Amino acid sequence: MEHPENSEEYKGLTVNKGIEQPSIVNPYLKLRKKPRRREFSVGEYVEGIVKGDVTVLSQAVTLVESVKPEHQAIAQEVIEKCLPYSGNSMRIGISGVPGAGKSTSIDVFGLHVLEKGGKLAVLAIDPSSERSKGSILGDKTRMEKLSVHPKSFIRPSPSAGSLGGVARKTRETIILCEAAGFDKIFVETVGVGQSETAVHSMVDFFLLIQLAGTGDELQGIKRGIMEMADGIVINKADGSNIEKAKLAASHFRNALHLFPAPDSGWSPKVMTYSGFYGIGIKEIWDMIYEYFAFVKANGYFEYRRNEQAKYWMYESINEHLRDSFYNNEKIISMLAAKEEEVLNGKLTSFVAAKKLLDAYFSTLK
Amino acid sequence: MEHPENSEEYKGLTVNKGIEQPSIVNPYLKLRKKPRRREFSVGEYVEGIVKGDVTVLSQAVTLVESVKPEHQAIAQEVIEKCLPYSGNSMRIGISGVPGAGKSTSIDVFGLHVLEKGGKLAVLAIDPSSERSKGSILGDKTRMEKLSVHPKSFIRPSPSAGSLGGVARKTRETIILCEAAGFDKIFVETVGVGQSETAVHSMVDFFLLIQLAGTGDELQGIKRGIMEMADGIVINKADGSNIEKAKLAASHFRNALHLFPAPDSGWSPKVMTYSGFYGIGIKEIWDMIYEYFAFVKANGYFEYRRNEQAKYWMYESINEHLRDSFYNNEKIISMLAAKEEEVLNGKLTSFVAAKKLLDAYFSTLK
Repeated sequence: MEHPENSEEYKGLTVNKGIEQPSIVNPYLKLRKKPRRREFSVGEYVEGIVKGDVTVLSQAVTLVESVKPEHQAIAQEVIEKCLPYSGNSMRIGISGVPGAGKSTSIDVFGLHVLEKGGKLAVLAIDPSSERSKGSILGDKTRMEKLSVHPKSFIRPSPSAGSLGGVARKTRETIILCEAAGFDKIFVETVGVGQSETAVHSMVDFFLLIQLAGTGDELQGIKRGIMEMADGIVINKADGSNIEKAKLAASHFRNALHLFPAPDSGWSPKVMTYSGFYGIGIKEIWDMIYEYFAFVKANGYFEYRRNEQAKYWMYESINEHLRDSFYNNEKIISMLAAKEEEVLNGKLTSFVAAKKLLDAYFSTLK
Repeated sequence: MEHPENSEEYKGLTVNKGIEQPSIVNPYLKLRKKPRRREFSVGEYVEGIVKGDVTVLSQAVTLVESVKPEHQAIAQEVIEKCLPYSGNSMRIGISGVPGAGKSTSIDVFGLHVLEKGGKLAVLAIDPSSERSKGSILGDKTRMEKLSVHPKSFIRPSPSAGSLGGVARKTRETIILCEAAGFDKIFVETVGVGQSETAVHSMVDFFLLIQLAGTGDELQGIKRGIMEMADGIVINKADGSNIEKAKLAASHFRNALHLFPAPDSGWSPKVMTYSGFYGIGIKEIWDMIYEYFAFVKANGYFEYRRNEQAKYWMYESINEHLRDSFYNNEKIISMLAAKEEEVLNGKLTSFVAAKKLLDAYFSTLK
């Protein structure tokens, strides 16, 4: 029996041909003001962002995403000046395999949190979207209600680069959004790869959307993702699916018991809901607000944000060190042969590594 | 009610005071031949190892574990020359939290596999053992029967250095043991840390020993370890514990269903046994032999060994690059201040990383 939501699901996977650059998907912006094409000064960017001008904000994000060094230089200055205004938001990662109903869920979750006031930014990390130069968020109809909501800002995943690069840009975009007064940030990811680790290390709460099913659907969860979740929510708990969803929830609860409690002291919750029929949404968000109250009270919120800032510093360093090595011309010319020698049992892994390292460092002198 | 095995368990955690260097724990060796103290040539080492001389083998392992550059130089040459004789073994990682009965289990597992002939080496990875400069394997009575078996070679964890260093030494020791004709290699680890990932990436089969329990004991499994297991075995399934063990096994089976199937195509098995009473040992090993037949037939065995060799090459490179950076004097003098600026919101993580990287590379010129 086909679930009413399924017919919509594949939209999330449709490649939006012809979109060469990520674009603002909130059509409201275009009605309000045509984006200015002239370049702003750093001061103008910061002023516009802090005032909450979304046009300026989106242009700043475009700078952050640009690979041009002159854009990067301005972007870094803008971010630096926005830093003091940032940090005051709930950062929530939302992950789930394709077909779990992420778009519909983010749409209803977004409307729910906006009922309390404030502003919501929806960002995405999906390094795979570089293939199409579009984005999983490129489809403007994917979040129907949220995309026309005046208090929302939806930004597709940066469309090119390594996971590290995409993650860096998303993290910098969070800073800009917060400086622009967005007090709720959703960071969406596809739930099938390493991007979850990246998202997990930039959010306060990690929500995993799952489906009830016979096991096959659950196969999509990558190793380790379940363990990052602060909450697991089973979608499509409606009609004849309710019992299956409850059973899945109890399986997840059992599985979570096999893992040690997270550092936060919070026991991850498992709940069921229906994004399509809007059932159980309030309960999920009451749980998430409870989490924030809990970790703010026990000091973990502050602790984790600090750890994340440090993590990103070290992660950037390590990534750059690797890039410097593996993009080194001498190394590029040697690497395949050394790998071959290791596979043929002519060199141990360690001796091969040493020979390559010696060659690399000699080129830096 | 105290389990008969429990009284023995804490031996594994006893710090064996006064052992400053890891020592050969097989007393047989001492009866057979007093270790020669003179230095061998590379050729003598290789000849002795290939002949299966355990005294020469242990001295070569001591060289591998030495931090002295002159020892390392000889060790690397010996390993290189032993490489062509290596590879012909079943490499099995065995992990479990303290108290799970690892020692007793390895003892009975070892005797069981030796019934079929061949030779068994038991190695260990436990970076935490550096604290005591001894080793979790230091206690000679820990594997009572195996330690006096003429076909076994028990070697404690290298006693100093980073996890990466300890793992490298263990991996090199595997090569030497295989060249010496050991066709079964157990690599033991403590089940509470990152060392599992290191062990997993050097063995063909990863066995996780667990206990039945009310949940508290299971809390000791670190995130991700369960997902690496090719087999999970619940110890102490005897007497009044049998039902509890069966229940735990069924919980683990359910939890494993939540993860995608491993690349090997093998479905991880969950079984119960009693190391102390020797119940269920044959069944476990029939399962492990079945695994080896399965992955040799489908090509995964060869594939994984190649992937592991590559992994260790890249891992060594990345570790060395990090060491070079973080041990750089300029970086040591700057790092704390930059981290502070990130935590105070004065610098973004990325700008701080860039400043440190610029400083580092300028010292290499």
